Amino acid sequence: MGLCGTDQDKERLIKRLGRIEGQVRGLCAMVEQDRDCIDVLRQINSVSGALRGVWIQVIGDHLKGCIAKAALEHDEELIDELMEHLQKIR
Amino acid sequence: MGLCGTDQDKERLIKRLGRIEGQVRGLCAMVEQDRDCIDVLRQINSVSGALRGVWIQVIGDHLKGCIAKAALEHDEELIDELMEHLQKIR
Amino acid sequence: MGLCGTDQDKERLIKRLGRIEGQVRGLCAMVEQDRDCIDVLRQINSVSGALRGVWIQVIGDHLKGCIAKAALEHDEELIDELMEHLQKIR
Amino acid sequence: MGLCGTDQDKERLIKRLGRIEGQVRGLCAMVEQDRDCIDVLRQINSVSGALRGVWIQVIGDHLKGCIAKAALEHDEELIDELMEHLQKIR
Repeated sequence: MGLCGTDQDKERLIKRLGRIEGQVRGLCAMVEQDRDCIDVLRQINSVSGALRGVWIQVIGDHLKGCIAKAALEHDEELIDELMEHLQKIR
Repeated sequence: MGLCGTDQDKERLIKRLGRIEGQVRGLCAMVEQDRDCIDVLRQINSVSGALRGVWIQVIGDHLKGCIAKAALEHDEELIDELMEHLQKIR
Repeated sequence: MGLCGTDQDKERLIKRLGRIEGQVRGLCAMVEQDRDCIDVLRQINSVSGALRGVWIQVIGDHLKGCIAKAALEHDEELIDELMEHLQKIR
Repeated sequence: MGLCGTDQDKERLIKRLGRIEGQVRGLCAMVEQDRDCIDVLRQINSVSGALRGVWIQVIGDHLKGCIAKAALEHDEELIDELMEHLQKIR
């Protein structure tokens, strides 16, 4: 069924993912420059937070798009898939 | 004090981060290809898991290196910094 | 609007919460008995996992109940509340 | 080796766990009173946060106590156990 959300939403996602790619490259550079452990750990946490932000955006678009549509059609399969996913997040 | 761990540990970190960079690029491509929300969500989770793996490696090297050294010198500052970091992880 | 789910779902929730209450009391006893740190940490993790299970049950009932109903009524407020909640989980 | 930390630390832990036990009982009451899903979800999150606080206290005492002692004795076993635990947290 494709990704929920408008073209604008997708562009926003791609921009966010581009920034995350840059952050991961920055992490690599930090390791090469032999930066302090705690700085590296903090930067990993910051990338995780940015990824969490992308996850929240996708799940929001999904709830407002696919899940709303599934509810209208009394189709519980998509909700079950989402539940299964939520069980695995960490 | 720099990053704890041997040169081999650092090389392993850089390799892992390179793979993660590739995974993020793959995520971008999934959005561009308009893949299903749930597939995108799963892929985000898989990148988070890989990042968590890097975090675990860095924290392990940190505990065995810097923290062990700090303990020998009765220096609690590094442990306090680590605690503060642990409080913020999610 | 009350809690989504059948009476059976609610009974299941109450049973699960009762077990968690017992686990927390068990944790208290472990501290009083001066058990090893790592055992206490593991037990905390096990209670967190059980709580996560309850969270998953409630969110599943919520998606299949309230959210499906909200989608039918084109009411995005409930979805926004859920998103806000998802942003805060850790 | 028992739990790291002073008697005061342990008392503080027991108090915190007592409060968490009360929060879990409160959650039970919320289900019985058929409170809104989102309120129940928020309360679950608040209990998880309190448990996380206990985890942070125990891990801090562990790092300053057992781990520091292990480092002095060049004993990596405790650090490996802690790493294994950190890998499982969510």
